[in-house]
Amino acid sequence: MQSDLDRLMTERNLDAIVVEGPDGLGSANPAFNYFVRGAHLTGLVIKKRNEPAMLIHSDWEVLQAQETGLVCVSSSRWNLRDIAARIPDRLAARVELRRQMYTDLGISGRIGLYGTVQTGPFLALLRGLEASMPGVTFVAEFDKDLISAARLTKDAHEVAVMREVGRKTCEVVQAAVDYITSGYADGAYVIDPTTKRQMTIGDVRAVIDRELAARGMVGEGTIFAQGRDAGLPHARGEDSMALQRGQAIVFDIFPKDASGYYHDMTRTFAIDYATPELQAAYDHVMGAFNEVVQEFELGAPTKPYQTMVCDYFEQRGHETIGKKYPIEEGYVHSLGHGLGLEVHEDFGFPSLADRGDVLVPGAVFSVEPGLYYPSKGYGVRIEDTYWCRSDGMFESLTDFPKDLVLTLKGTRN
Amino acid sequence: MQSDLDRLMTERNLDAIVVEGPDGLGSANPAFNYFVRGAHLTGLVIKKRNEPAMLIHSDWEVLQAQETGLVCVSSSRWNLRDIAARIPDRLAARVELRRQMYTDLGISGRIGLYGTVQTGPFLALLRGLEASMPGVTFVAEFDKDLISAARLTKDAHEVAVMREVGRKTCEVVQAAVDYITSGYADGAYVIDPTTKRQMTIGDVRAVIDRELAARGMVGEGTIFAQGRDAGLPHARGEDSMALQRGQAIVFDIFPKDASGYYHDMTRTFAIDYATPELQAAYDHVMGAFNEVVQEFELGAPTKPYQTMVCDYFEQRGHETIGKKYPIEEGYVHSLGHGLGLEVHEDFGFPSLADRGDVLVPGAVFSVEPGLYYPSKGYGVRIEDTYWCRSDGMFESLTDFPKDLVLTLKGTRN
Repeated sequence: MQSDLDRLMTERNLDAIVVEGPDGLGSANPAFNYFVRGAHLTGLVIKKRNEPAMLIHSDWEVLQAQETGLVCVSSSRWNLRDIAARIPDRLAARVELRRQMYTDLGISGRIGLYGTVQTGPFLALLRGLEASMPGVTFVAEFDKDLISAARLTKDAHEVAVMREVGRKTCEVVQAAVDYITSGYADGAYVIDPTTKRQMTIGDVRAVIDRELAARGMVGEGTIFAQGRDAGLPHARGEDSMALQRGQAIVFDIFPKDASGYYHDMTRTFAIDYATPELQAAYDHVMGAFNEVVQEFELGAPTKPYQTMVCDYFEQRGHETIGKKYPIEEGYVHSLGHGLGLEVHEDFGFPSLADRGDVLVPGAVFSVEPGLYYPSKGYGVRIEDTYWCRSDGMFESLTDFPKDLVLTLKGTRN
Repeated sequence: MQSDLDRLMTERNLDAIVVEGPDGLGSANPAFNYFVRGAHLTGLVIKKRNEPAMLIHSDWEVLQAQETGLVCVSSSRWNLRDIAARIPDRLAARVELRRQMYTDLGISGRIGLYGTVQTGPFLALLRGLEASMPGVTFVAEFDKDLISAARLTKDAHEVAVMREVGRKTCEVVQAAVDYITSGYADGAYVIDPTTKRQMTIGDVRAVIDRELAARGMVGEGTIFAQGRDAGLPHARGEDSMALQRGQAIVFDIFPKDASGYYHDMTRTFAIDYATPELQAAYDHVMGAFNEVVQEFELGAPTKPYQTMVCDYFEQRGHETIGKKYPIEEGYVHSLGHGLGLEVHEDFGFPSLADRGDVLVPGAVFSVEPGLYYPSKGYGVRIEDTYWCRSDGMFESLTDFPKDLVLTLKGTRN
């Protein structure tokens, strides 16, 4: 959590960190958001070890800047126009602006670099700074970096926010279920009782997007995939496809709200009935899910849980990534991932090299076993977002039933 | 446009370009989107000069990959598990994976780097590649880079997409106007005839978000700012604030749809009446807008238009950024910016150093003069998105009236 930052900086021998903010509006920048808490801001965050974080902000954004609670430093302290009058080259002028800023703020020694950037401009600026500030070392951490390490353990405020995002997400899923089950059967298809036309994935998606918006949420990339597409973990589903009774539907939704925090959940549905093959795969996935969740233990390394799920599936005749990589069918991915300000954060249940992840208090992560058979026209995935509590309990933030079959309730008139 | 890429690579003496894709779902990455056209994909784009662009994609995302029309190369051609078995260090294994990929694909010489990345992991990987591929030069362009130069000139398909985003955005603004004018006056405030309560900015925002969602659009950061907040160019507006008759409202909306392309428009409203001071400022802004648009000419440099607007405002008693920088009140920003896959693209009407921008055919950009007086409790901005056509006409993609006063139509009944 944020209160760990100074300790983490000491462990990494960092004198300061610089978190680049978005250069325009609308860019996702989770490391920056971690400091500004979802505010719409450009600028950058600079923190010296054992000192509070500063937000370098434009005068235009003073209101949003003050709301972050960070130490606010107006960027007008450094005058780009004066520098540009002296240094016509735009890059050289920007380098000089940063050099003045770092010098005035007393930034030196080993500086950790974080945030989302555009490769070219960032790298050009950095190369210029390296040349003009020879006493400074710019440190690039590849993974398990300082900010990720802090973000891994959510504090009480973050958990409260994520619980609320989870609650709203479940409401949206319920609204989609209510819409689907309002239909009535017409042969293989489902009829929308209002329009009297076949319900399509696009119709369901419209409900999902409307209900997300009504709750101040954004859900880019929602997966609502039927049949063969349900067997491809990242296929989104074709809007023009009509819903079909008995087919596997993988519904994976991972929205964020204005806080910037995400929820991630998946349900697999079959309308009215499930084929025996789908039901069997579903039972295997639910079995794996329940077994692994039961075994979660505070302080335990994560990799054995992935192995446990692979073993469970292999004993039931499925190929898994635990034995062979890559594979196209069976259990093709890992058990879950951290989430928070990103859908995928730096924490997981690895199939490949063990990265030393451990079930630490404050971790929030997805649990999502699945089985994928695109060649047979189906796939199954079940996913909840779990929070590892300091009392050793593992609590699902996804309060939603796990029923495969959705029974149609509509009538022809 | 995309057809310019090889010429632009030749001008920059680049043998290949690498466009980093998002490492997870949900990140904004306009340079990558320029190639994959809004598809939800991880992976990366590699293009050698005078060869078609390749998409290196995961097998999970084969459907989306094929829809992009790019040459598809499965990342399973390079086996990270085998490499990791030999090279336990995660960074070193990733560097080796990339080295193998670049070598197999025949990438060498001068390689331009583009796309949105996380600073630490990107820089660590790059430093590793520079050490392991000494024959390769990784080129960082600071601005007016290759991809931005291509993106500057929109092709017919892109203009058609942006016209549609503009049309939908105007519908959303109309819906917000219809909601506001459905109210009736109650002293200084406006009453929602359905709830019988004072309309708030949050109520209007709910309408905006609902109407955006209904059209498959996302509008993060929409500005609906009243009174003093209207005088701060980037203040979003407080949801809890009640609408007030006669006050300046700056409504700046810049949504994108599933294509990834943005529209950007601003209207300034006053409910029922405007104070004389606000009306005068509004007339100055409209005067500047109309004068500058009339003077647009194919091939003309952009900087003189900013000067023209500054002169116009100064003659009418306003301070401007043209004379003093930074300033807090008056005309505090520049006339406009390019837009497309980002709200702010690499094209503008500079107040500071001239960057050589010229009104080229295919440019799509905002025109947004404004006057800001937070200390007096108001601000004004008017913004349309313009397209520079090859026949020399400048066409607004924002088909929406520019009336200051919104007359309430509701009745207490």
